[in-house]
Amino acid sequence: MPSSQPILLIGAGLAGSLLAVLLAKQGFPVVVAERRSDPRAKGYIGGRSINLALSVRGITALRDAGIADQVLADALPMPGRIMHPENLTDATGEGTVFQPYSQDPADAILSVSRGGLNIALLDAAEQTPGVKLLFDHRCTGVDLDNAKAIFDTPDGEVALQGRVLMGADGAFSAVRQAMQMTDRFDYSQHYLDAGYKELHIPAPQDLPDLPAGVAERFNGYAMDPKGLHIWAGRGGGASMMIALPNPDKSFTCTLFWPFVDPAGGGHGFHSVEALDDAGVRAFFNKHYPDTRWLMPTLEADFRRNPTSSLVTVRCEPWRRGQSLILGDAAHAIVPFFGQGMNAAFEDCRILSEMIEAANGDIEGVMDPFWKSRVANANAIADMAIANFKEMREKVADAKFLYHKKVEQAIHAALGQDMPERATPLYNLVSFTNVPYAEAMQRGRALDDAVSRVVEGVPADSVKEMGAMAWLELVMARARGVLDGQVV
Amino acid sequence: MPSSQPILLIGAGLAGSLLAVLLAKQGFPVVVAERRSDPRAKGYIGGRSINLALSVRGITALRDAGIADQVLADALPMPGRIMHPENLTDATGEGTVFQPYSQDPADAILSVSRGGLNIALLDAAEQTPGVKLLFDHRCTGVDLDNAKAIFDTPDGEVALQGRVLMGADGAFSAVRQAMQMTDRFDYSQHYLDAGYKELHIPAPQDLPDLPAGVAERFNGYAMDPKGLHIWAGRGGGASMMIALPNPDKSFTCTLFWPFVDPAGGGHGFHSVEALDDAGVRAFFNKHYPDTRWLMPTLEADFRRNPTSSLVTVRCEPWRRGQSLILGDAAHAIVPFFGQGMNAAFEDCRILSEMIEAANGDIEGVMDPFWKSRVANANAIADMAIANFKEMREKVADAKFLYHKKVEQAIHAALGQDMPERATPLYNLVSFTNVPYAEAMQRGRALDDAVSRVVEGVPADSVKEMGAMAWLELVMARARGVLDGQVV
Repeated sequence: MPSSQPILLIGAGLAGSLLAVLLAKQGFPVVVAERRSDPRAKGYIGGRSINLALSVRGITALRDAGIADQVLADALPMPGRIMHPENLTDATGEGTVFQPYSQDPADAILSVSRGGLNIALLDAAEQTPGVKLLFDHRCTGVDLDNAKAIFDTPDGEVALQGRVLMGADGAFSAVRQAMQMTDRFDYSQHYLDAGYKELHIPAPQDLPDLPAGVAERFNGYAMDPKGLHIWAGRGGGASMMIALPNPDKSFTCTLFWPFVDPAGGGHGFHSVEALDDAGVRAFFNKHYPDTRWLMPTLEADFRRNPTSSLVTVRCEPWRRGQSLILGDAAHAIVPFFGQGMNAAFEDCRILSEMIEAANGDIEGVMDPFWKSRVANANAIADMAIANFKEMREKVADAKFLYHKKVEQAIHAALGQDMPERATPLYNLVSFTNVPYAEAMQRGRALDDAVSRVVEGVPADSVKEMGAMAWLELVMARARGVLDGQVV
Repeated sequence: MPSSQPILLIGAGLAGSLLAVLLAKQGFPVVVAERRSDPRAKGYIGGRSINLALSVRGITALRDAGIADQVLADALPMPGRIMHPENLTDATGEGTVFQPYSQDPADAILSVSRGGLNIALLDAAEQTPGVKLLFDHRCTGVDLDNAKAIFDTPDGEVALQGRVLMGADGAFSAVRQAMQMTDRFDYSQHYLDAGYKELHIPAPQDLPDLPAGVAERFNGYAMDPKGLHIWAGRGGGASMMIALPNPDKSFTCTLFWPFVDPAGGGHGFHSVEALDDAGVRAFFNKHYPDTRWLMPTLEADFRRNPTSSLVTVRCEPWRRGQSLILGDAAHAIVPFFGQGMNAAFEDCRILSEMIEAANGDIEGVMDPFWKSRVANANAIADMAIANFKEMREKVADAKFLYHKKVEQAIHAALGQDMPERATPLYNLVSFTNVPYAEAMQRGRALDDAVSRVVEGVPADSVKEMGAMAWLELVMARARGVLDGQVV
C-alpha cells in the first residue's frame, strides 16, 4: 500500500480533530470522516452549554499541537472544590467550604464548553495543511485488515480507503463494533447504578430572587466561579450534584442519582421522574436547599433533559489488521475524575510522539501504542468509579475528611521536597502527565502512609495540642513513614 | 396479548430442545426456530463424534422432562479421572493413575455425543404435543418488548410473534445481541489465552501398532474407557489434553494449548501450526509420548481441524421486555469443569419449575428466574476458569496432590456423616444440584479446612507413621476443624 495514502480517521469529535492536527503537523495527509453535520455551519447555537474539566494531560496535548492558546481563550480556571454542606440553606455562598487542589494556584482544572472546544479544534484542523474534513459520513462498515470503510452520506454510499484506519468515534464506536466481531477480542461494558441529568443555574439577571450583593461578590455570577461546586453525599450517600461555571455567567449542573428497580420503590430517578412539578421542587428543596433561588427553570429542565446512563467500556486489543481505536472508542469511562477527554487527548499525544520517534512508521507503533496505554486506561477507569463512590458516600464522613486534611498538610509541606511520595492521587491525575497506572500506585502508597500517620495523630489531637504542634507532629511522622517507602 | 399465543423459542440446540419439552409438558404451545437445518434429515453423519460430559444437574433436568432413559442410551459412565504422568512412554495403560471421583461408583460423569444427544432431544421435542420445530430459520432481528422476531428462511423473510420470546441460541446469541443494544445492559466477553483442537484416537482395529492384549484388557478400546483421560501440566504447565470415550470404541481428544503472540515466539498453537507433518509428530512424541501408537491420523487431524477459542460471556439483565435469554446465550463458559451443557439444562429445569409454581405466570417469573441464576452462572464461570489453571499448572505438583489426597480421604471417611462440610467442590458441582454459588462457597471452606489439616499432618508423615495411623490422625484433625465450621 503506497504510504502517500492518507490516514483515514473516523470521528471528528474532540479526540479525532486533535489527532488530525497532530498527524498532519508531522506531514501525513489525513481524511477525517464524521457522522454528524459540521457544527459550525449554523454557528454553534448551543443553548445551554455543556462543559468539561480540562486538566494538565489535555492541556499538554493541545500545547504539543500548538493550539492551546487558540482553543482555550474562554476556559475558566477552577483551583479547588467548593463544597456545599448537606444542611446548608443559605444561598449567598456563606457556609460553603473552598478546598484548594494544592498550595500552587496554578494547579487548576479548566471549565471549558464541549461545543466551543470542538469547534475550535475543527477550525484548527481545517487550518492545518493536509487535513480534509468530511461531515455527514456515517460509518456503516469497516474492513479492518485493509483500512477501508463504507459510509452513508447525503450523496449515497461512499467507500474510503486509508494507509491505516483510526477510530476516534466515541463510546459507541463503529470501528470497535467491527473489532468485537473478530475472534479473541476481549470486551466489557459495565453501567453504574446511577444516571445523570443536566440542570441549569442562569446568570444573575435571570434570578429575580437572588439576594442583593451576591452577584457583585462573585464577579457577576450567582455563585463563586473559581471552583468546582460539589453537593456530595445526598440521598443517604447515594448521590450528588456538581456545577461548573460558564463564560456567560451561568453554571451547568449535573445531578447524579441512582436508578432504582421499578419494582423496588426507593427514591431514584424513576420515582423522581414520576413526581409532578411541585414534587420535583420539593425534592430539590429537601436535598439541595441552598439552590432554591438559583434554579428558576428547574421543573422545565428536569422534564426536558434526558436521564443518561454512565458506562465504562474496556477492550483489547485496540488494533486489528491495519486499524486502531483510541479515546472513548477504546476506553469510555465515567466522569467522576474529569478525565475522559484528558485521557483521550493523552492517547493522541502519545501516539503522535511514538510515530515521530519511529520516523513515521505508523504500522510499527500501533501495537506498542495500545499495549502501553491499556493498563493506564484501565487504571483511570477504576479510579473514576472509585471517585464516584468516594464523592457520593464518604465525602461527608468526618474520618474521611480528617484523612484528607492530613494528606493535604503533607502535600503542602513535603510536596516540593519529595514529589514522588507526597503528591496525592488527585494531583497526580489532574496536574501531572505521570502515567495513570503509576499515579494510581503512588496515590495508593501515599494513602497508606496517611493512614499510618493518622493512627498516631488522631483527629481530636488538633484541639488538644493546637494547630502548630499538630502540624509539626504530622510532619515528623509523615517524614518517618515516607522515608521508609520504596518508590 | 392472548395467552394462547405460543412461546417463541429461538434455538433448537441442546437447551432449546429440552426447554421446549419441559414447557410443552406444562401445556404451553411452543414454536422453536432454529438457524441450522434439521440434523436428522440426512441422519447424523457425524464422522468423528464430539462428546460432552453430562453430570447430575443435566441428568436431573432430563429426568424431569421424562426423557433421561430415551436420550442416554449410549452414554458411557466415567467414575473418575485417569491421569497420564508426564514422562510415561508406555502405551499399554500401565503407569496411568485412576482417581475415583468418590467412594460411591454411582458418582460418575457420562460421556455423551453432542450430535447424538441433540438428535435425541429433537426427537423428544417433536414427540411432545404442542411443540412445533422450524429449521433453516436464521434470526435477523428481535423486537424484545413485543416478543417478535424476523427470520431469514429458504422461503424468504418470516416474522413470528410469541406470548414471550426465549433465546436459547448459544454463545453468539442474536437475542442477546439485541439486548446489548439497549441501555444499561452489562456485558463482557473474555477469552482465555489458550485455544483447543479436537483430535482422534480410533478403535483398535484402526491401530496397527497397538500392542497385543491392550484392546482385550480395555473392553475393546485402546485405552480404559471407564474414566476421563487427562494429560495435565504439559508445555511447562501451560497446557494439557483430555480424552473421552465414544460408543464406537474410539476416543475424542481435546488438546488445549496456549495461543502465542506471533511477535513473541514460544511454542503455542501459532508455532505448532507452522510445523510440517514430521514436526507435529515430533511435538506430540515429546509432550504426549504415551499416545504414539494411538493417533495414526494425527498429522491429518491436526491440519484439518480448526483451532478454536475459549470465551466466557457474562451479562445482565437476562430479560428485556417480553424476552429472556438462558443457557450459553446468557452465560457461555469454558469447558474445564464440564458444566456448560449442565448449567444450561439446569436453567431449563429451574425456569420450568418456577413457571409451574407460579401457575403458568411466565411473565411474572422471568425477573425472579434470572436474578436467582446470575450469581450461579458467574460462580461456575469462575470455577471453570480456575479449574483450567489448576489442571494445566498444579496437577503435577506434589503439594497439590497431597492436598487432594487428604481431601479425598476426608470425603471418603466423613462425607456420609457431614455431607454439608466434607464434600469436595468437584463433587458438589458434578454430583449434586446444590446451587453453583453455594457449592463454590462450601468447596472453598473445605479447601481451607484441608489446608489446616495438612499443616498438622505433612506429606512425609505417611511414611513415618504408616498409612493407618496417618489416616486416623487426618480424621481426628479433620473432625476438629470441620466441627468448628459455621455452615
